[in-house]
Amino acid sequence: MFSKIRLEVICVGNELLYDRINTDVNILSAIMAKAGLRISRCVTVPDIEDEIIASVRECLKMSDILILTGGLGPTSDDITKEALAKFLGKKLVYSGEIWQGICERFARRGILPSETNKKQAYVIEGSEVLDNPVGTAPGLLVQEKGKKIALFPGPPVELKPMAENFTERIRDGKETPLEINRYGLYGMGESAVEEKVNPFMRKIETPYTILASPQMIEILVTSECPRENLQRIGVFLKDEFGNSYAGINPPSLPEMLGSILKEKDLRISLAESCTGGLASKLLTDVPGSSAYFQGSFVAYSNSVKKKTLGVPGSILRKYGAVSPETATSMAKGAKKKGKADVSISFTGIAGPSGATATKPMGLVYIGIGLPRKKTEVYRFIFTGNRERIREQAVYKGFDLLVKLLREGHVKK
Amino acid sequence: MFSKIRLEVICVGNELLYDRINTDVNILSAIMAKAGLRISRCVTVPDIEDEIIASVRECLKMSDILILTGGLGPTSDDITKEALAKFLGKKLVYSGEIWQGICERFARRGILPSETNKKQAYVIEGSEVLDNPVGTAPGLLVQEKGKKIALFPGPPVELKPMAENFTERIRDGKETPLEINRYGLYGMGESAVEEKVNPFMRKIETPYTILASPQMIEILVTSECPRENLQRIGVFLKDEFGNSYAGINPPSLPEMLGSILKEKDLRISLAESCTGGLASKLLTDVPGSSAYFQGSFVAYSNSVKKKTLGVPGSILRKYGAVSPETATSMAKGAKKKGKADVSISFTGIAGPSGATATKPMGLVYIGIGLPRKKTEVYRFIFTGNRERIREQAVYKGFDLLVKLLREGHVKK
Repeated sequence: MFSKIRLEVICVGNELLYDRINTDVNILSAIMAKAGLRISRCVTVPDIEDEIIASVRECLKMSDILILTGGLGPTSDDITKEALAKFLGKKLVYSGEIWQGICERFARRGILPSETNKKQAYVIEGSEVLDNPVGTAPGLLVQEKGKKIALFPGPPVELKPMAENFTERIRDGKETPLEINRYGLYGMGESAVEEKVNPFMRKIETPYTILASPQMIEILVTSECPRENLQRIGVFLKDEFGNSYAGINPPSLPEMLGSILKEKDLRISLAESCTGGLASKLLTDVPGSSAYFQGSFVAYSNSVKKKTLGVPGSILRKYGAVSPETATSMAKGAKKKGKADVSISFTGIAGPSGATATKPMGLVYIGIGLPRKKTEVYRFIFTGNRERIREQAVYKGFDLLVKLLREGHVKK
Repeated sequence: MFSKIRLEVICVGNELLYDRINTDVNILSAIMAKAGLRISRCVTVPDIEDEIIASVRECLKMSDILILTGGLGPTSDDITKEALAKFLGKKLVYSGEIWQGICERFARRGILPSETNKKQAYVIEGSEVLDNPVGTAPGLLVQEKGKKIALFPGPPVELKPMAENFTERIRDGKETPLEINRYGLYGMGESAVEEKVNPFMRKIETPYTILASPQMIEILVTSECPRENLQRIGVFLKDEFGNSYAGINPPSLPEMLGSILKEKDLRISLAESCTGGLASKLLTDVPGSSAYFQGSFVAYSNSVKKKTLGVPGSILRKYGAVSPETATSMAKGAKKKGKADVSISFTGIAGPSGATATKPMGLVYIGIGLPRKKTEVYRFIFTGNRERIREQAVYKGFDLLVKLLREGHVKK
């Protein structure tokens, strides 16, 4: 059940940069939906005083809570705070405390704040300062005629924690927040999933939404549907998709891989050619990954493949760098040189150049090294641009290893 | 010169998927800016009739052109057309021509349209049908009291071509499209740049926008300002910021580093600890990077630092993995083992754990290996979360190397 609170959002920024600005809407809508707060309207306006004021006036007509994001920075085109103060007929007052905080933040980086930063130390009179642990721009909360008006900084890393804290405060306790149950499927295609899921969901009359990302397909079902259905859906997906079913609200694929490696006390190393470090980056995005991630070899040139991974020159000459033989040899090398128990290797043609008649763009060989087992190698042809091909290859490699490890008969 | 036409956009969709919806705003704002059309306001509303109608009413008060995107699909939650018809007090009429087009489209895919698709064959009476070459949902153009109301489908691939055609029509021919000049500065802080740039821009009376990203600060100036100013700004930035000035519409920092390496015929290898492969990933995002990128060592564990990079155990024991000594040794190892001319090493504490009294979160040492030169090492303390710290470290490393190479006295 959604909250009765009416919430609207105004994102402020330069109209040439609406694409950046709209990441704010995405972040906020995700956070609010989790808390059962519907965003009734999101407005994006240019950093022009009249436009900001016109939208604030309009949104305040209907909404109980208005959130403005962006335009709290130190530069002259950051005018959100000033425009709101003008609309409310309130003064901006200097806060020595905030200024001190800004100075300390700069000091930690060994530099001095400039005079322009002083702008960020001014707050709307009578407003409450919302602490910003990540940046210099403090948030503000203004209470006006029973309505709450919140100002959040635009940069996602600063917006997110502030919005999460704020959400906790504005949720009225009576409402049970809307829960969104995300059923995850690793390594599946959207239409293949839709084909199976749609008839089942019709049968149990449960509305759902399918979200596809390179690392998993998610089936979203809100807690508005009966409890027992939530279980039935899980059972259905497990029967239908077996090891590809990742459970409700599953971790990301790198997190899942990490937790399995930890649980089995296995260490991993990677050998990356076409993926160029992306696999390592995604594994180490996970805090605490040093517990199982030994390291990896981004072996782009053949000389480095030979020297660091010990891929025999004869294999590179005979089969080429993009071949099952090279993938196998890379996975072996990563396991050995990386002092690891398991390994994944990636070699392929991410494009835009490098494709041949026999080796098309998107061709990727993935090698998997397991303890006391023969190295396995898999062949794929991925579609899309360079970025997409690299992304699909990496997640496929993670998916393959997760499934092999989940089959359970892998021991150190 | 921006057009005088006032244009507003309403995006309609499921509020759980605002992130999807907002890609529409991004696409439209890019297309409109190119054509010199300012989007005065973008509104995102859920697929709820009252919400759609309320926003349409509000936007029509001020705008000459209103574009609605999304909700033209065949399913029951697609109600944009119906809501607008209701607001305008107009009927929906069946179009045999559209239905025939839909049937032909399905036929090409060897399938039959379902009855639900019939919904898409209904148009608002008196409206003009906008052809959709990519999908089944036609666009609509309604002329009402001298205002234009356009309905576009939400899926980006369908929205883009339709919006581009439409834009050509609504632009009044006199307008020259708006060009955006981006002046780039590598390795500078936003406020430090603003402090110098603002007084100069005031002096030459040129409006500008500063866009800060971890890899560069961009100063955006539209072609609305006199030609000679565009040159004066470049000269000013060069004088003021020297090697940090990257030129107009500069390449990304990894692209810039790559082009300098190519030009000087230098090969690079990396040694990454805390950055975990991010630096390699960003370098290899650039097509053709294999021309200068040898490979890299993501040496997370000490054993791998020793084995693959040859960092002496004595250094790791005496100074620790996060130390100038280790960074130096890693950079040397990357250059040697990676058979490269130059190298960058990263070792630090990206958090959330691992910080100590003497080694705070965000502490990163960056080593730079150059041909026939002593390895240089730099110390930084970055702020923000794990992701931010890693990102700042990587771009700082690229920036340091770019500047050293640009100083010119680096030869193979």
